[in-house]
Amino acid sequence: MMNALESASPSSERAHTTGDFAREEVALANRNSGLPLEALRYDVTPAGLHFLLTHFDVPFVTSADDWRLEIGGRVRNPLSLSCAEIRTLPEKTLRVTLECAGNGRVNVVPRWQTQPWEYGGVGTAEWTGTPLRHLLERARPQADAADVAFLGADRGFDAGCEHDYGRSLPPALAMDEDVLVAWAMNGTPLPPQNGFPLRLVVPGWYGMASVKWLRRIEVLARPFDGYQQVGNYIYRQKRDEPGVPVSTMRVKSLMVPPGIPDWYTRHRVVEAGTVEIVGRAWSGGGVPVVRVAVGVDGTWNDAALDPLQGAYAWRGWRYRWDALPGAHLLECRATDANGDTQPLESPWDAVGFGNNAVHRVPMMVR
Amino acid sequence: MMNALESASPSSERAHTTGDFAREEVALANRNSGLPLEALRYDVTPAGLHFLLTHFDVPFVTSADDWRLEIGGRVRNPLSLSCAEIRTLPEKTLRVTLECAGNGRVNVVPRWQTQPWEYGGVGTAEWTGTPLRHLLERARPQADAADVAFLGADRGFDAGCEHDYGRSLPPALAMDEDVLVAWAMNGTPLPPQNGFPLRLVVPGWYGMASVKWLRRIEVLARPFDGYQQVGNYIYRQKRDEPGVPVSTMRVKSLMVPPGIPDWYTRHRVVEAGTVEIVGRAWSGGGVPVVRVAVGVDGTWNDAALDPLQGAYAWRGWRYRWDALPGAHLLECRATDANGDTQPLESPWDAVGFGNNAVHRVPMMVR
Repeated sequence: MMNALESASPSSERAHTTGDFAREEVALANRNSGLPLEALRYDVTPAGLHFLLTHFDVPFVTSADDWRLEIGGRVRNPLSLSCAEIRTLPEKTLRVTLECAGNGRVNVVPRWQTQPWEYGGVGTAEWTGTPLRHLLERARPQADAADVAFLGADRGFDAGCEHDYGRSLPPALAMDEDVLVAWAMNGTPLPPQNGFPLRLVVPGWYGMASVKWLRRIEVLARPFDGYQQVGNYIYRQKRDEPGVPVSTMRVKSLMVPPGIPDWYTRHRVVEAGTVEIVGRAWSGGGVPVVRVAVGVDGTWNDAALDPLQGAYAWRGWRYRWDALPGAHLLECRATDANGDTQPLESPWDAVGFGNNAVHRVPMMVR
Repeated sequence: MMNALESASPSSERAHTTGDFAREEVALANRNSGLPLEALRYDVTPAGLHFLLTHFDVPFVTSADDWRLEIGGRVRNPLSLSCAEIRTLPEKTLRVTLECAGNGRVNVVPRWQTQPWEYGGVGTAEWTGTPLRHLLERARPQADAADVAFLGADRGFDAGCEHDYGRSLPPALAMDEDVLVAWAMNGTPLPPQNGFPLRLVVPGWYGMASVKWLRRIEVLARPFDGYQQVGNYIYRQKRDEPGVPVSTMRVKSLMVPPGIPDWYTRHRVVEAGTVEIVGRAWSGGGVPVVRVAVGVDGTWNDAALDPLQGAYAWRGWRYRWDALPGAHLLECRATDANGDTQPLESPWDAVGFGNNAVHRVPMMVR
């Protein structure tokens, strides 16, 4: 199929580059939406400000009435369930921070040409659904179940491979009480772009695991080999090595850039005096953030931490900065309960996954 | 102030270019959100899919309770009104298509470096508010009123000029029954990024006139000279000429690209056979679209038009394409009741405003 695609119009070769950005990267940046960092002020990201990465097209689904979720493969009791049937199962709401695995990619040098996230590929929402295990328990996986695949209604090509977007989870994680099949976001039905009418939410993992527009669950006797599982979302030093699958989020923090911006450069100016710097920090796998340090021109001090908001949501932090006139560099750096700390420089990854380096904001104080 | 900003970190010089894209352009594309073209299928764009252009930061306003709208300048009765007071005025809901004046900028060669819109800077919403005239009638403009300025709570720099975002309308237009001070979008309070708690909506005009986070209305005895009025949003052949202010939207159409996409290139593939191509078309100033033609490999035929959705909303259209295997070029081209038709090539503008050239989608049929 890639031959047919390439003849439709000349395809840009993707490459590692340190140069300016290709039109394809810009077009992806326009389609996909980053959280504007000033929206870090909200505990729960308002609808439409949460980051959004759509691999293919947003499926056009105007009613949940005709949607069916199929559960098949290595199960004793294959199911085809309506949304109404799924909503009769036990309901749970979780506040969850999701980050795109590629967030921060533009700071990984040389960068791989794809969605060019700077910092905004993150957001926090309250997801309401039923724990996936209630569906799996009814489908009764067979003894040889080795993997559970989740397939969405979004279809397209990547690297010449045509596929429905799909990802898998190991059976033990799929049975975790906090992995949800969700139908609501922030108390309202899922917006189309966030997976209407049903999506998976895998707290603590990078966003690629939380399959949107969920249409089929397939229990497998072997590891799932879909493109997004084995050809993408892999930490690799070189693009042609097997690598290590991307899974839980790495510890990270971001700040609300103080002051006011310039339209084009986004350079920022703030008034001299006491400036309260606020931000958010999170980690993966349910591990809490236990420390955030703020750097001012290379001198680090601890920020005050807000209370935790459950096991899976970002944690607020604040720091009083006595801002003196002149140019300054602000940084923030989180540490989680495992003792993992953000690196000072972007870790190398061939496709720019998992970049959790400290957030740096140059400032002018007047 | 620009000196201070520039010393905060090295500023990229903005320029006309035919080259690849600067990081500043990519960062703007991430912050600002385009409509994914598949969402043209919705009569009313769902929340979070409407285009969004934020010049500075989204103001952090958590409650409408403390918001005041000031009305002053050349008025006999200066006002300071709460949102609750404004909501007692006569209410009106209008379905309005808003397009960013810079939409299509990347196809204007050489392009000016700023938000690099491809096609997605457009959306349609149902705005509920009160006609602005009810406020102005209570404030009673003086006889010498020559312009009415609208100032938002968003502040920053552009081209070295620090300002609150502001735009003006001539008094006669400000008294038009369809210019709204709106508090709701699609039946719910304005989302933060769309102007909470109050915004202006100027139907038929490019989006820059619909000032968000509306905080002050100033009646002036002279033309408003704010940066966004006299330094930006001007049609110019060269950047240093006075030019002509951008106002109403030009006639335009876009299609939902058929088939399925490639992740990176967005090249598209569709199955051979009958393909229904659908899209939207609109014009400015309340002028209806009366014709849409679809081009297939340079041969044009009329599309069927859906009913009008009021004076200010885009009009649906559809066309049955007998898709034969191979590479094809699809185009769409609208004409309005004034006889204005989309140009085949992008009209020159020094900052890329008002590009209403035909939409072209290369396709591969298999």
